[in-house]
Amino acid sequence: MSSIPPVAADKATTTVVIYSGGMDSFTVLHRALSEGLTVHALSFDYGQRHARELDTARQVCASLGLPHQVVDIRAIHGLIDNSALTDPEQAMPEGDYDTDNLRATVVPNRNMILLSLAIAKAVNIGAERVDYGAHGGDHVLYPDCRPEFVEAMNHVAGIANFEPVQLHAPYLTVSKADILREGLAMGLDYRHTWTCYEGRELACGVCGSCRERLAAFAANGVTDPLAYSVDNAAGQR
Amino acid sequence: MSSIPPVAADKATTTVVIYSGGMDSFTVLHRALSEGLTVHALSFDYGQRHARELDTARQVCASLGLPHQVVDIRAIHGLIDNSALTDPEQAMPEGDYDTDNLRATVVPNRNMILLSLAIAKAVNIGAERVDYGAHGGDHVLYPDCRPEFVEAMNHVAGIANFEPVQLHAPYLTVSKADILREGLAMGLDYRHTWTCYEGRELACGVCGSCRERLAAFAANGVTDPLAYSVDNAAGQR
Repeated sequence: MSSIPPVAADKATTTVVIYSGGMDSFTVLHRALSEGLTVHALSFDYGQRHARELDTARQVCASLGLPHQVVDIRAIHGLIDNSALTDPEQAMPEGDYDTDNLRATVVPNRNMILLSLAIAKAVNIGAERVDYGAHGGDHVLYPDCRPEFVEAMNHVAGIANFEPVQLHAPYLTVSKADILREGLAMGLDYRHTWTCYEGRELACGVCGSCRERLAAFAANGVTDPLAYSVDNAAGQR
Repeated sequence: MSSIPPVAADKATTTVVIYSGGMDSFTVLHRALSEGLTVHALSFDYGQRHARELDTARQVCASLGLPHQVVDIRAIHGLIDNSALTDPEQAMPEGDYDTDNLRATVVPNRNMILLSLAIAKAVNIGAERVDYGAHGGDHVLYPDCRPEFVEAMNHVAGIANFEPVQLHAPYLTVSKADILREGLAMGLDYRHTWTCYEGRELACGVCGSCRERLAAFAANGVTDPLAYSVDNAAGQR
């Protein structure tokens, strides 16, 4: 188990939280609020199949009375030539959706794009910080979730504009189970989060994303309060 | 006069050139071609009033037979709260459009956003390099045109994805007049570039951007081949 780093002793009063509607960024959002910061939530619509995630984000921000903006970045997909998917050398690999397939289909440079936009928003509203939920479990899959990347982007964020912006990724070296442990200790209700990659009414309980979520709850000895599709809720019972 | 740095002795074979249709990126584009690189040109439609610039870029790429993509990033303006423009402390300053007014109205963090997208394109098509035309004259106005920024972004570009991308800004410390000098020495025809900020049929010759262009030609003792609006072509005659 990784230890959870202390809250940064910086002087920020306002932060832009990159908030997807999932568990990790839900925890980051509440952690920023618990620090007494003014929070502006920012979500990205990149045409995700699991648009329920964005609806959840909207509902949470509405109930918290937080300013929340969903930025439509679907046009960015036009940037990407998907012929790689028909290239035999990059043929869609078999295996778990979360690992190999995501690697083959994900928008390149995704986190640099999202952070660049969040930093723009921060400069625009006078926020000194951008919070985001990169966590320890992402390091293997994504170069742009590694501490070296976040550190390098933090340096850029400090010099790219007249007003410096600090990147804050409090869970950078923390596992999903430990993020959940902190959120549960804060009394957060994870019913108000969405994780499933399938776009259905109930979470499927079997996609890679659901399995990872259920494993985090299991590691904490707690039952996930989210409703799952009855047929597939094996991980829950 | 700044000296023009030598061509980088890197091993890139393909580059994504951020190409606006203006003089500087036109020169960068041809410089990359002269290095023998495979060039993919990338332009951004951010709703610029001077859309003639994009038309010029399309025409040049078509005549050179280069792959060219215009990415529509107008949605990014939705990110920006323009209330700053009505904030008395940030009231639209008087003076030259190119300096004070641009500072007040420009999208924050613009170059980080554009570079992030260009790096995504580079990773997608297997290009090892992104070329862009930041130049010496921009340093005063824009933190994200300074050498420190480009160096920091280059570091990030090297670690953000499985495939490293190198940023190449050959004119980073070179004046506009010296960029033009190099282009003229390469035999480039600057009739195929567009600079004017006004969206009219002919370049106005008096906006800050036209004045800067005409000054670069004057510094080289050469007449700009572009047609200017007759009434305003004072700088040309």
